[in-house]
Amino acid sequence: MSPEPLAFLVDVKVEAPSASDKAADTDRLAEGFRNKGFDDVQIPLHIMRRLPEELRRNGFDVRLVVGHCGQGYRLLDVGKERIYGIAVDIGSTNIACSLFDLTSGDKMGTAETENPQISFGNDVLTRVQRSMMGEFEALKKALDEGVNLAIEEACKGHGVATEDVFAVTIAGNTIMSHFFLGLGVKNIPMSPYVPAVNRPVFAYAGETGLLVNKNAVVYVFPNSGSYVGGDIISGILSTGVHGEDEPVLFIDVGTNVEITLGCRDWIMVGAGAAGPALEGGVAGIGKKADRGTISDVKIDKLSGKIETGVIGDIEPHGICGSGLISLVSEMYTAGIIDQAGRFTGTQNGISEKDGVKMFLLHSSGSGELYLTENEIKNFLLSKAAMFSFLYVFVRSVGLTFRDIKKIYVAGALGCGIDTEKAINIGMLPDIPRERFIPVGNSSLSGAEMVLLNRDLLNEINEIASRITYREMNEDSELMSVLQGAMFIPHTEPEILKG
Amino acid sequence: MSPEPLAFLVDVKVEAPSASDKAADTDRLAEGFRNKGFDDVQIPLHIMRRLPEELRRNGFDVRLVVGHCGQGYRLLDVGKERIYGIAVDIGSTNIACSLFDLTSGDKMGTAETENPQISFGNDVLTRVQRSMMGEFEALKKALDEGVNLAIEEACKGHGVATEDVFAVTIAGNTIMSHFFLGLGVKNIPMSPYVPAVNRPVFAYAGETGLLVNKNAVVYVFPNSGSYVGGDIISGILSTGVHGEDEPVLFIDVGTNVEITLGCRDWIMVGAGAAGPALEGGVAGIGKKADRGTISDVKIDKLSGKIETGVIGDIEPHGICGSGLISLVSEMYTAGIIDQAGRFTGTQNGISEKDGVKMFLLHSSGSGELYLTENEIKNFLLSKAAMFSFLYVFVRSVGLTFRDIKKIYVAGALGCGIDTEKAINIGMLPDIPRERFIPVGNSSLSGAEMVLLNRDLLNEINEIASRITYREMNEDSELMSVLQGAMFIPHTEPEILKG
Repeated sequence: MSPEPLAFLVDVKVEAPSASDKAADTDRLAEGFRNKGFDDVQIPLHIMRRLPEELRRNGFDVRLVVGHCGQGYRLLDVGKERIYGIAVDIGSTNIACSLFDLTSGDKMGTAETENPQISFGNDVLTRVQRSMMGEFEALKKALDEGVNLAIEEACKGHGVATEDVFAVTIAGNTIMSHFFLGLGVKNIPMSPYVPAVNRPVFAYAGETGLLVNKNAVVYVFPNSGSYVGGDIISGILSTGVHGEDEPVLFIDVGTNVEITLGCRDWIMVGAGAAGPALEGGVAGIGKKADRGTISDVKIDKLSGKIETGVIGDIEPHGICGSGLISLVSEMYTAGIIDQAGRFTGTQNGISEKDGVKMFLLHSSGSGELYLTENEIKNFLLSKAAMFSFLYVFVRSVGLTFRDIKKIYVAGALGCGIDTEKAINIGMLPDIPRERFIPVGNSSLSGAEMVLLNRDLLNEINEIASRITYREMNEDSELMSVLQGAMFIPHTEPEILKG
Repeated sequence: MSPEPLAFLVDVKVEAPSASDKAADTDRLAEGFRNKGFDDVQIPLHIMRRLPEELRRNGFDVRLVVGHCGQGYRLLDVGKERIYGIAVDIGSTNIACSLFDLTSGDKMGTAETENPQISFGNDVLTRVQRSMMGEFEALKKALDEGVNLAIEEACKGHGVATEDVFAVTIAGNTIMSHFFLGLGVKNIPMSPYVPAVNRPVFAYAGETGLLVNKNAVVYVFPNSGSYVGGDIISGILSTGVHGEDEPVLFIDVGTNVEITLGCRDWIMVGAGAAGPALEGGVAGIGKKADRGTISDVKIDKLSGKIETGVIGDIEPHGICGSGLISLVSEMYTAGIIDQAGRFTGTQNGISEKDGVKMFLLHSSGSGELYLTENEIKNFLLSKAAMFSFLYVFVRSVGLTFRDIKKIYVAGALGCGIDTEKAINIGMLPDIPRERFIPVGNSSLSGAEMVLLNRDLLNEINEIASRITYREMNEDSELMSVLQGAMFIPHTEPEILKG
């Protein structure tokens, strides 16, 4: 049997009533379901009300929308010809979604929008604080608007009515999932770190703020605690960490660095503040990867000439995370900055303004893009945090980088990162390049998988139950590694290998 | 274990979270439920949202309202100290309900109100026709208003907030149940007689029109077809027909005569139009038994003096069903009417007005109560229908009245009927008087039983599945018995014994 999505169409044909068969409409349909192998399908009152007419209009041969709702099936609608599903990744910064035709299983399109909660604070903790000061409903509403905007965009682009969306899967970190479900967030980042819910939540769209069919089933990934949310679990599902024979790494870098190390037998997740976020947080010119952001930089060692690769090949207005990695690596290789990230001289486009030293990356009629020495420091802080977490984490289970045969790289680093350059500055470990596997938005991928295959629901619970969380920031070894990692590539380069 | 009601309170105490126990609030509560023996309690989103605060405010020791919802349990509310339940019998003419304290199981009171649908037609078929002509919603609304009025009255009388009612059981005939659930009724009285639903329906008050706590569980008795509704099944449950070793009879007389004959091994139900209804339908002075209706009549054979027993001992304004039986029996015994129900002379208060002969039953300053010859005919038609149905029904399974050890009498005849007089006019069979057992509103009694004991849910399904329906009006023997039964007591009196 091919995988079955969370909501699906079932054609049920029953005998028309007769003098010798007076079974009631609902009972007749329930029997039809049983004959199709569905033992007990909840038939809610609002459908029962429409059933007599729908059955008779269609000669007792009806197409039904059925949803999986946790512990069984539920009839969601009657008479739809095609139904759709939406997978959503709710990130603290961006909300991404994919639209699927649940009848064919085809992916129809995607949409992405900024999380409107950003207007309450870039930092998730700021949002938790503001929600504790009476703004919870406003934050919840902002998130709903963002999610609904993304869903609407995805649907509109393909002529799909949101009314025809009957299943939605939601992956997000613990705080985002809570906001989405309207669950209070204040206990999550506060000792002893107890969320309102960790197990998966099944709801109906009408109970949430989702503007799709109000009877649509909504599945929210489980969390594994305050710091290991559904986004990580979804990422583990999509990368397949939990099925590996040997331990593999899965790195997701966003506002936090989230590291998963595991295999078939155990899964350990660690997370820690990554310092300033790689994009907006690091530099004034830092931007989310999009049309017009620089994603790649080349600096000629001799001439100092800068070549930039710009997404969409248009005039650039900023630089994205992978662009920053590329830029710093090139500046270091070209001798423009030293090991500590300081400018080595004033040549090669270095200038000073109000006592602030900066590097001119790009200049055009519409403006100039500069990177300051301080911003380079910020960047190095982030790369140091990331590398140190990785190093300490792998070592803590008695392994070295050499033992790791696969490293899945997701999140801000997941698309377009130049592995070679990231290794060059000591951000990623120096192991054979082919072991790095970019996986893009792995949280969205996992949400897509379960949308299309409800058999994965158990697998997800299984993953959640196997995860051990390790608080990174409390590690004693971390500080010494971190200090060296603030330099390019590291004060003790042999550490990069393992 | 004592019987458990459909909704009940459970005190759950869980450990407070600590550094070594970071289970989420919902998961923690679910575990608490498991420890209490409830394996899987649905925790809906609206409760999850309140849970963190409720748990902490009460030191992780909370009182929960749990409801049985068909295939499992569901958390309905948190923090209620006492909860209440309502059992409802929706009759075509009257709506009766009882209020229970679900914590103690005590019956607190009852309330009764006329079914406001009567303004659309006394006859249920008229209401079905009007609903087919676009008045369904108006009929549904009228019924809701009646049910809510009865519930409100019952609650108000005992200082109970309707918001604290968490379980409602509903017994009614198939058409009443359908109106209540908002299910179309047009196919019920039309060949091949297929209701929208026969199996029991579990809903939440918010889905129905009930003005109690919107999360209250609502249980609607199953039907066994168009003509055997939840009211009969509820009556069977309360009389215990389904548990008898030997066949017993259970007679419910309302607009229809409904007869149940059965025992542990089989249950047969027959129904047929009972001619004009015993009360309002028979006579202009006919009234529902209530304060001021005559329920008993004595006529002195010699003097012709009439003594009336009036409910509430006040000036009478009408006569109820049992009063009519009493009156006709006395008139016959006193020789005022003959076997055919015709006045034997003009003596004894018989008068004539515009060619209509009538009998003066009562006279006072506020008016006079007359019964016409034609009304007596109507009454005899009803009693004939009832007796004939009984006779044919019992004979059809090879039994005679003598074989029947118990006859439960419910409905219009259920309270206050003078068995001797009913036998005297040939309405009930002439068997030992102690075999007649009045059971009042047996439909309401059954609804009360399941409200307080959810173990009966299976028993009810069992009853529903064992019922065979027998269409009475199509019986060939019926007509010949019916013709004789139009006389008092019958043209062939030996038939009355079996």
